[in-house]
Amino acid sequence: MKNVISAVCVHCGHEVEATPTTYTCPKCGGIMDIKYDYKYIREHLTKEKLADRKDPSIWRFKEFLPVAEDLNYPKLRVGGSPLYKADRLAEELGVKTLYIKDDGINPTASLKDRASALAVAKAYEAGMDTIACSSTGNAASSLAGNAAAAGFKTYIFVPSRAPKGKVSQLMIFGANVVSVQGSYEDTFRLSAEAIERWGWYNRNAAINPYLMEGKKTVSLEIAEQLDFDMPDYIALSVGDGCTIGGVWKGLKDLYEAGFIDKLPRLISVQSTGCYPINRAIQENAPWRPMEENTIADSIAVGVPRNPDKALNAIRESNGIAVNVTDEEILSAMRLLGRTCGVFGEPAGVTGTAGLKKALEEGLIPRDASVVSIVTGNGLKDTANAIKAAGEPISIPADMNLLLKAFQEKGFDLK
Amino acid sequence: MKNVISAVCVHCGHEVEATPTTYTCPKCGGIMDIKYDYKYIREHLTKEKLADRKDPSIWRFKEFLPVAEDLNYPKLRVGGSPLYKADRLAEELGVKTLYIKDDGINPTASLKDRASALAVAKAYEAGMDTIACSSTGNAASSLAGNAAAAGFKTYIFVPSRAPKGKVSQLMIFGANVVSVQGSYEDTFRLSAEAIERWGWYNRNAAINPYLMEGKKTVSLEIAEQLDFDMPDYIALSVGDGCTIGGVWKGLKDLYEAGFIDKLPRLISVQSTGCYPINRAIQENAPWRPMEENTIADSIAVGVPRNPDKALNAIRESNGIAVNVTDEEILSAMRLLGRTCGVFGEPAGVTGTAGLKKALEEGLIPRDASVVSIVTGNGLKDTANAIKAAGEPISIPADMNLLLKAFQEKGFDLK
Repeated sequence: MKNVISAVCVHCGHEVEATPTTYTCPKCGGIMDIKYDYKYIREHLTKEKLADRKDPSIWRFKEFLPVAEDLNYPKLRVGGSPLYKADRLAEELGVKTLYIKDDGINPTASLKDRASALAVAKAYEAGMDTIACSSTGNAASSLAGNAAAAGFKTYIFVPSRAPKGKVSQLMIFGANVVSVQGSYEDTFRLSAEAIERWGWYNRNAAINPYLMEGKKTVSLEIAEQLDFDMPDYIALSVGDGCTIGGVWKGLKDLYEAGFIDKLPRLISVQSTGCYPINRAIQENAPWRPMEENTIADSIAVGVPRNPDKALNAIRESNGIAVNVTDEEILSAMRLLGRTCGVFGEPAGVTGTAGLKKALEEGLIPRDASVVSIVTGNGLKDTANAIKAAGEPISIPADMNLLLKAFQEKGFDLK
Repeated sequence: MKNVISAVCVHCGHEVEATPTTYTCPKCGGIMDIKYDYKYIREHLTKEKLADRKDPSIWRFKEFLPVAEDLNYPKLRVGGSPLYKADRLAEELGVKTLYIKDDGINPTASLKDRASALAVAKAYEAGMDTIACSSTGNAASSLAGNAAAAGFKTYIFVPSRAPKGKVSQLMIFGANVVSVQGSYEDTFRLSAEAIERWGWYNRNAAINPYLMEGKKTVSLEIAEQLDFDMPDYIALSVGDGCTIGGVWKGLKDLYEAGFIDKLPRLISVQSTGCYPINRAIQENAPWRPMEENTIADSIAVGVPRNPDKALNAIRESNGIAVNVTDEEILSAMRLLGRTCGVFGEPAGVTGTAGLKKALEEGLIPRDASVVSIVTGNGLKDTANAIKAAGEPISIPADMNLLLKAFQEKGFDLK
């Protein structure tokens, strides 16, 4: 990896060689950050060279990724998700320019595929055959899918509240799944103990610094899709803190390597039922645990495992913290579906719900340009989709009954 | 549309101008086929020109599509789905070369997005504002999503057996949904009556010949992804008959325009619980209605609406008809998940189930090259995924209980 210099502890600054099993800081236990040689990147990659690449996946950005360039194993095609100009939604929200990055269009239907692709690559580099993680669901199914394609075994720990859609994915991908009757915190602890005991490759994004390097590819793609003309804001949901940390890392890497000359401000959106990271921002105080009380299961994280990087990202970007209710989340599901044809899961649309609120509360100006990231597909959690959207008209096959039903619904038909 | 000559009736050969609202034959009621000027296509598109295009969606093949070239409206990014070389699956099935085309990676998670994209384009050309269809589910959600992105209203009729995942998509996309308490045949009839009465744009693929032109893009993509070196066989599931008809149309168009010099044989796979098209092939007789008795809801079509094109496709390609049981379908779900990291819905994996059977029964040789199309995402029907894959280990967060559970499962851990 000629592009990587080292791994540096976010907490104490201790610097070590970046090996595949470099996890947390050997000195203080803090999470590490991968440090790049930006001169090397600048010399080996240009915007023009990138534009000529045919690979639409995250690996088109290989100069920005901490992986040996010659790894060859069967991979899912991760990344390359569409960025939609959302004019009708922009109009409804009252903002000048809005793009929706639909990351539900990934092999296992969430942004987490970006991180899991890196985990599989590093486990492959390390010569290991088993990978494990704990997850609220999406990291789990993405690890299971990406590992299955590459022929790895997986052990995966999820809290029992994980929606059926996500668990069914895991099982189909052949993962060994442990559903933990407890909180995400309980689940994380048990997985850590098991990983320690059996020496599996550790895909926990708050432990393994490479995961965030995968997540950052969403920023690299947004930049390339906007021809490196960055928006004023990027809005996204925040749970464990790894995704917003990754988004910010991608932006900083692009900036340092001279690919962009403006850093967007981050809009960190959490649920009013669980917002330990946003509370720390709003109170300008250290984070404290909270209960996990929201339908947005992917971001129901009362004890975030990566608060350092998340808080850094929000503060460094001069970001904004917004909390939304479950009702606002369900409303954003309908709004994105109706105006964009994009179906996000509750946590997936939380960024858009927060953007709406930030505009209403005057936290960001109406003439701003914004990218809102949809982090997961609504098909992962159809129970909440039904809750958001209601049930259809249900009748026997009879025209008179159809007419009656349409009249009752107040449809304006001749 | 300089590339289109006319619409020709598949049944009686009657030829008419191809307008956006050209549906069935005005003379005999048969379904029409879009006829191209292959000389025009050859003159305006080459393999090299195609390779240089950056648009990964179906619109990269515009010379092969019956749409005015300057249509500009907000679109979902349809198509461009990955084609995976599936070596581990090939080994398990005992076939030399196997590719999996994962069409579950489409904006609304099925191949039907290809058809619905065309429906929206033609409705836009026609200046209409409302589109309607009946569907077992996937055509419905794809129409709802693609229409929502473009700002069209939709009326959508589904049989009440459609899985929750598909119905939830419809509702989120803001479609007006009628769940019909009856068979697909009942649903189709009621939709036809309503479309006639209110003059909506008709997206029923067995009525509107443009839909199949969208579906054919899956063949165009497979060809380009294989560098126009076509496989011996293409395996896919068959319900209404429109998809296999579309796949064959794409292959023939490529052949006529000089892009490929070999036509693969089609493997038509239906369920043993509902196989009217395959029965017609196997008995070399006209098709007759059957009951709809399979978990693969998307292909549970007892009265196929497009038998002519489907039967033509299978016969012209010297194809093979294979029927599989529900258990074989569930087994294929596990197999694709475990070996490829691809999660298909029951009808989505039915092509692969049929391929397995065709190999076991010696219907195709072991040294063949095959593409198997996965037509829809498993997240659409998680109830059946759970049925296929079983439930996870469920325990409180306790290492001793974990050890006990692993022992009971017989996991080989130190």
